[in-house]
Amino acid sequence: MRTVLLTFLSIATAALAVNPTSAQSVQKKLNPRIERAIRAVIEAQRDAWNRGDIAGYMDGYARSADTIFISGDSVTHGWQTVLERYQKGYDTREKMGVLTFSDLEFSGLSADAVAVSGRWHLKRTNDEPHGRFTLIFRRTRAGWRIIHDHTSSA
Amino acid sequence: MRTVLLTFLSIATAALAVNPTSAQSVQKKLNPRIERAIRAVIEAQRDAWNRGDIAGYMDGYARSADTIFISGDSVTHGWQTVLERYQKGYDTREKMGVLTFSDLEFSGLSADAVAVSGRWHLKRTNDEPHGRFTLIFRRTRAGWRIIHDHTSSA
Repeated sequence: MRTVLLTFLSIATAALAVNPTSAQSVQKKLNPRIERAIRAVIEAQRDAWNRGDIAGYMDGYARSADTIFISGDSVTHGWQTVLERYQKGYDTREKMGVLTFSDLEFSGLSADAVAVSGRWHLKRTNDEPHGRFTLIFRRTRAGWRIIHDHTSSA
Repeated sequence: MRTVLLTFLSIATAALAVNPTSAQSVQKKLNPRIERAIRAVIEAQRDAWNRGDIAGYMDGYARSADTIFISGDSVTHGWQTVLERYQKGYDTREKMGVLTFSDLEFSGLSADAVAVSGRWHLKRTNDEPHGRFTLIFRRTRAGWRIIHDHTSSA
């Protein structure tokens, strides 16, 4: 009886140790090549923003009616609508300021979906808005692109 | 020559039509059974919150050191730390108020990862804070659980 119980416990412990969704491993390990590819998209967005190129910045987003941008209590659907929102809200170089990203954290969700979170900071003459973002990237024919952006402010 | 070109165009068009990452389909169709399972987790969280049961509310999150909660400009890592943050921030029934969720949108990312966004609203005696959230759910041994929560306020 004791042997049976011990065997059962050993099997249960082994199952716990290898289960990919055990408490210690809800985030999947990310391929470094994928991380580099996504990091390049984010850096290209930052560089485009800092030369006043909103269309270039928008290249990081999937050109789809399904692309979602959430900020504060508002949600915007569709690449074109997000572009127009940026063009309206940041119509001068002064408003655009100098954008930096930091504290990037990558979390693989599947072979073609990755979550990235981090901090954003806008250095402007009169203020320095900043906060956090969560991006969901999908592997598309054009490369890794953002399909979901949730941005919050301090 | 024209036949070859037309054949090539037909193949290219067909490839475009079925490519799962074409511009029109960056979000994957979600199995209705999975949507129901996740909706049940969210509704159980709301019900736990509204009876003052923060531990019950926290059952919706993966019990992992990797679970991430982002709000405003702050990030909290780990189930235990998120729990303590809620217990500290909402130490009376008055502060907890009555929580409702609305405008839920589901987006399948893989067989075991789903993004959900929506509105949250807290009805309290003296104020009604509200805003948006993005949740990333993973299929775990315990069921569908949140591994990443980004919440913003109006």
